[in-house]
Amino acid sequence: MTVGIVGLGLIGGSIGLALREPGRKIIGFDPNSASAKTAFDRGCIDAFADLSEVSKADIVFIAVPPKHVVATLIAVTAMKNPETVVTDCTSVKAEVVEWADRAAEPNFVIGHPMAGHERTGAAFASAWLFRGAKWILCPLNSTALSAVKKVESLITIMGSSLVSMDPHAHDREIALVSHLPHALAGVLVQLADGPHQVDVTGGSWKDLTRVGGVDPALWTQIFVANRVEISKAIDETQEKLAELKAHLDNNEYDGVWAFFAHSRNAKERSG
Amino acid sequence: MTVGIVGLGLIGGSIGLALREPGRKIIGFDPNSASAKTAFDRGCIDAFADLSEVSKADIVFIAVPPKHVVATLIAVTAMKNPETVVTDCTSVKAEVVEWADRAAEPNFVIGHPMAGHERTGAAFASAWLFRGAKWILCPLNSTALSAVKKVESLITIMGSSLVSMDPHAHDREIALVSHLPHALAGVLVQLADGPHQVDVTGGSWKDLTRVGGVDPALWTQIFVANRVEISKAIDETQEKLAELKAHLDNNEYDGVWAFFAHSRNAKERSG
Repeated sequence: MTVGIVGLGLIGGSIGLALREPGRKIIGFDPNSASAKTAFDRGCIDAFADLSEVSKADIVFIAVPPKHVVATLIAVTAMKNPETVVTDCTSVKAEVVEWADRAAEPNFVIGHPMAGHERTGAAFASAWLFRGAKWILCPLNSTALSAVKKVESLITIMGSSLVSMDPHAHDREIALVSHLPHALAGVLVQLADGPHQVDVTGGSWKDLTRVGGVDPALWTQIFVANRVEISKAIDETQEKLAELKAHLDNNEYDGVWAFFAHSRNAKERSG
Repeated sequence: MTVGIVGLGLIGGSIGLALREPGRKIIGFDPNSASAKTAFDRGCIDAFADLSEVSKADIVFIAVPPKHVVATLIAVTAMKNPETVVTDCTSVKAEVVEWADRAAEPNFVIGHPMAGHERTGAAFASAWLFRGAKWILCPLNSTALSAVKKVESLITIMGSSLVSMDPHAHDREIALVSHLPHALAGVLVQLADGPHQVDVTGGSWKDLTRVGGVDPALWTQIFVANRVEISKAIDETQEKLAELKAHLDNNEYDGVWAFFAHSRNAKERSG
């Protein structure tokens, strides 16, 4: 089996490392030759290939930055073999769905691995990145079940488990569980940034700000692509904060208690 | 040397575990006999003692819930030996400072270990809780240097490093780097709590919500005690979120980019 990877950054590189083993050939393409070299030097791919060769692999993972995904999908599906299965890894699905609805390509599967790292690039790629992670697939009516099964077999090998979702629900959910946390981490590090900064942080700060310094180029694309849903998530956050602040300003013990009791119950329900 | 611990929860229990070794006797008091038994069964203390005996140890750590701290300080300082050094572990200092300014007890040292856990109680106590953590001390003009040195020697044994701070700066800083993160974690878990909850969370969610289910009784006391500073920190958060939301609503790529660029720079400066 030949696996093609388009985009050899953190995600593409990690897919290569996670899938590379005897009997499975990994070929990769990245327009940035430095990125491609890093991926090759770290053993993420067996070989470079041009985009047309990568497109003809048995399965192709598209792991390019959000703004290049649709153009890449158009190019890859134009050059691929009919039986080649293509899947993408983009964290916002609206544009991809719009294209996929028009293309109605049975062997394209909309995907999104729920794994990442606060640093980008194949230098940080890891064979373990997807272990224990959810890998979302959003099959459309036009998607062939055989294509979904093929993608699933590889994500299982990488240690992820499949979650099927409607793509519109995807963008709404991800705005909340991934994009909003990145915004809040950014707000926190910005607020603590100043001349009087004192190093007295503990575990909660460390955790809440781990993703506070993510790549601006990548995350701006993600936020602009999912701006409608993220804006709604920010609205909901503002409402919750305003409620809590009102309880504090009015010195309402019961109101503050209700905030933490609700939080604890929600946390326990989420496991 | 005898170490007294008043309040045998997560913090008191962990102090006991971290300090217990031949030549150092750890005696503890907790008005809740179940908590005291848990601490004893887990080896956090060598022996129970009543409050007057614990108060006469060479050094006494006060690790009771915020609303009981001042009453406990009054009781302990009334019963202690003159040379007994007393220190507290409360995460909000305003009330403690008010009392300490009046008491002017040279052998009392205002303290706050920057360590914790999302679960409370001696059942979760650990000898390692304070390793690598900052332990804030806020000496007043009335505080004896010898008392500070005595506390420092023990926090060093526990693996923490001393940070000296003005107690008013303390409450402002901690509102930002500890209390606000707990509020944001609570908001996140509340927003994700609903009938349509889908389990597609990844690493950022896991980190940002680790402390989303903390003990309502304890954290309500903390928030009410530090309500003025936390309210200001919420204001600042809301301003930052409103800016980001405006950029998203206006589809301003450059504005969103500036948000993430500022975040990255702030994160890099904070190390």
